[in-house]
Amino acid sequence: MTSAQRTAAPGGYRHRHLLGIEGLTAPEIISLLDLSDGYVDLNRGSDKKKDLLVGRTVINLFFENSTRTRTSFELAAKRLGADVINMSVAWSSIKKGETLLDTAMTLNAMHPDVLVVRHPDSGAVQLLAEKVNCAVINGGDGSHEHPTQALLDALTIRRRLGTLEGLLVAICGDITHSRVARSNIHLLNTLGARVRLIAPPTLMPGKVERMGVETFHDMRKGLKGCDIVMMLRLQTERMQGSYVPSTREYYHFFGLNQDKLQAAKPNALIMHPGPMNRGVEIDSDLADDINRSVIREQVEMGVAVRMACLETLNSNLMAARLMQEQACQ
Amino acid sequence: MTSAQRTAAPGGYRHRHLLGIEGLTAPEIISLLDLSDGYVDLNRGSDKKKDLLVGRTVINLFFENSTRTRTSFELAAKRLGADVINMSVAWSSIKKGETLLDTAMTLNAMHPDVLVVRHPDSGAVQLLAEKVNCAVINGGDGSHEHPTQALLDALTIRRRLGTLEGLLVAICGDITHSRVARSNIHLLNTLGARVRLIAPPTLMPGKVERMGVETFHDMRKGLKGCDIVMMLRLQTERMQGSYVPSTREYYHFFGLNQDKLQAAKPNALIMHPGPMNRGVEIDSDLADDINRSVIREQVEMGVAVRMACLETLNSNLMAARLMQEQACQ
Amino acid sequence: MTSAQRTAAPGGYRHRHLLGIEGLTAPEIISLLDLSDGYVDLNRGSDKKKDLLVGRTVINLFFENSTRTRTSFELAAKRLGADVINMSVAWSSIKKGETLLDTAMTLNAMHPDVLVVRHPDSGAVQLLAEKVNCAVINGGDGSHEHPTQALLDALTIRRRLGTLEGLLVAICGDITHSRVARSNIHLLNTLGARVRLIAPPTLMPGKVERMGVETFHDMRKGLKGCDIVMMLRLQTERMQGSYVPSTREYYHFFGLNQDKLQAAKPNALIMHPGPMNRGVEIDSDLADDINRSVIREQVEMGVAVRMACLETLNSNLMAARLMQEQACQ
Repeated sequence: MTSAQRTAAPGGYRHRHLLGIEGLTAPEIISLLDLSDGYVDLNRGSDKKKDLLVGRTVINLFFENSTRTRTSFELAAKRLGADVINMSVAWSSIKKGETLLDTAMTLNAMHPDVLVVRHPDSGAVQLLAEKVNCAVINGGDGSHEHPTQALLDALTIRRRLGTLEGLLVAICGDITHSRVARSNIHLLNTLGARVRLIAPPTLMPGKVERMGVETFHDMRKGLKGCDIVMMLRLQTERMQGSYVPSTREYYHFFGLNQDKLQAAKPNALIMHPGPMNRGVEIDSDLADDINRSVIREQVEMGVAVRMACLETLNSNLMAARLMQEQACQ
Repeated sequence: MTSAQRTAAPGGYRHRHLLGIEGLTAPEIISLLDLSDGYVDLNRGSDKKKDLLVGRTVINLFFENSTRTRTSFELAAKRLGADVINMSVAWSSIKKGETLLDTAMTLNAMHPDVLVVRHPDSGAVQLLAEKVNCAVINGGDGSHEHPTQALLDALTIRRRLGTLEGLLVAICGDITHSRVARSNIHLLNTLGARVRLIAPPTLMPGKVERMGVETFHDMRKGLKGCDIVMMLRLQTERMQGSYVPSTREYYHFFGLNQDKLQAAKPNALIMHPGPMNRGVEIDSDLADDINRSVIREQVEMGVAVRMACLETLNSNLMAARLMQEQACQ
Repeated sequence: MTSAQRTAAPGGYRHRHLLGIEGLTAPEIISLLDLSDGYVDLNRGSDKKKDLLVGRTVINLFFENSTRTRTSFELAAKRLGADVINMSVAWSSIKKGETLLDTAMTLNAMHPDVLVVRHPDSGAVQLLAEKVNCAVINGGDGSHEHPTQALLDALTIRRRLGTLEGLLVAICGDITHSRVARSNIHLLNTLGARVRLIAPPTLMPGKVERMGVETFHDMRKGLKGCDIVMMLRLQTERMQGSYVPSTREYYHFFGLNQDKLQAAKPNALIMHPGPMNRGVEIDSDLADDINRSVIREQVEMGVAVRMACLETLNSNLMAARLMQEQACQ
């Protein structure tokens, strides 16, 4: 099946950008996961190269440091044959507002096909996407969304348990500052899983029940009967001006260990978006438990998911350009 | 027409390096602009890849930070199929003099084909070019030259107005520290445009009239009847030990706004090499005026011009190697 | 001769990793040098591209800054057609111990084929190599080993003098902190050269005689009759808490100049792994002496040696995967 046929399938992902999971339909999400599955196998072989993006330019525009996410996108784009440019911009050193757009418009003038953007401010990637001619992938914006992380988490779960439908998923820790939590809530709700949030009151956002989730402040109660335990990184760097828990105190109440984990289902899977603070969010032995921890599979799925997203957005862009050309004739 | 034929054309650019605009003939400059035109179209399409530089190595050696120029050269080289290596060297942290040459000779021993060099000291790129076997492009040296910027400015003007001949061009602002101004003066003079410099006395270099330009200290007088208004970035980082104007004061007297612009011709084009200090050198609305501002086109032309320069220097290098081999037989 | 045949040759290098020179046999070392020779010629031509590593991923994981070594590996991998990812990790800013392994396992999950690792701690690269599925090249670990440097030094000598057997080689300077010295001692001993170490007592490691070398504290005595003079960089950054010689004092006693060099054989070659501190370890004129200094050839050989190592480890990995697949059937 060719790329063109894939994106033409009913329910396929036909948006120009990938800015968030909120608002996507189940078939759209599933089409991206299905496409990702093939890339998992490709990446496990010796010849990891396809030529779907030859002649295209992908720019990784990172206003926030993230070696791991940048590397994952860079690898994904290179394995598809694209020319890849990395741009790290120290956001703290430049003025806000129009300068983001000046940067965007400058890059836009160089005719990239896909821009992958990470930015410390919620909504910045959306703002940028409205101004450029290329496709934009949100690589994480503030505490808003991180769609490829939710997709790779879903792919990891689906490959382990066959489906997400009907699963009970606990997302635990620093919910307030977590774009990972936000994207996962939308995705899990859409694919029929039930979501519980477990956090101390200071790290639980208000009005979150509107998102159709249950909330808990106690790990044992919240984990009871769960199929999936998603731990989050404690983002102390985003807690300026508010209460920062000590790591010992945090681990005591909210760190995942064998004792708390017993509340979950016997075979519950353990997930973490990385990088882990061992002994803070999670007991080190549990992180390495080869039967229950799927943390390294998440990283592996990440490259596959990003290849699928790049392929899909490129196909959509080509289709849009073709239509535009035909309309001009 | 093949590359070989192009460089063999009468008046084509046949130098080994591109170190500056000073001393180039009009046919040499025009041959680079003509070649650039084709790359503008290539970059606007979906498949932006050519294989003219496959097997060649281009090293971007930047002793001064410049994400924008580095990205432009990197994209240009990758779209031509070259292997590209980025080297950012913090010049402040290394010793001067011989170490520049040690760095150059180390890279030279790795057999690059083209070195793109940016350096904070005027003349450093020339010094380096004399020691290496490959082609060198000056990506900006101190306040000396920035030849690809002048070429991209010329290409932008030529595509808008058809020719540079007979145009009246005002270059405004921090002339003293501007390699962009210096390269543009040489190019504009050579292609038959008339150049005016407008700057406060502290930012106007001495003896500049020898370059065949008129000088003004008043924007309205200087802009009178101009076809092109080229604004420059205020380079406060290069003003150590001398008077640094306040940004408010500077904007009042030398910032481009609607009022001052009325002195120029009704359709005068506005240019800026970027990055802009909005509200300092230029009014924000004017910068975004889609009829008059060609600032984003300048960025677009930049990639095309750099592709043309890389292609030309590579062709010249191949021709020189061939002659050398034949001479050895 | 194909790659498969090369690695199948008797005595060829068949290890999965290249972690050090210690323990390698003479035929293993020679097979890598022989393969490197061909790449020297390739790099001197215009088309420097081979497709042996197309579809493979090489990650340069540098926990210590080294523009020169990183560039050499990056060029080598790109010229062989691999996709190359650079990761610079500021080791000082992350916790030690498990985090190294978390970084390793994260990258491992992205399915690289070769990891090139530089790390400030001796043994860190070995630790990492035990945990990953890919091939690992030690790009320098603490004061332990830097195998590709020893190989490029050997290639430089062999191309100049035909053989290493029977040569008298003096390694001079900061032996204590030098992984270059350690790797070279192993290689030179194995290929039949005799090694002398010359250093001040504070920079001469204890028990070094067990490695089968002679030691000297006086340059003129140590250099007497030597064929090769290998100078080392003074690594003051690794001398925390111990005596740091002044550069004038050091140059007076241990810097190589014409006077001291007269003790060596009349045509003795001068080597330095770079970057040089001119006027500290070596007189500037001697460093540039085109008859005796082979410092720039060392850099040139570096790219060739790294191409040979990448090709060999990739072949071995492919062979291992094939055997594994056959065993599974």
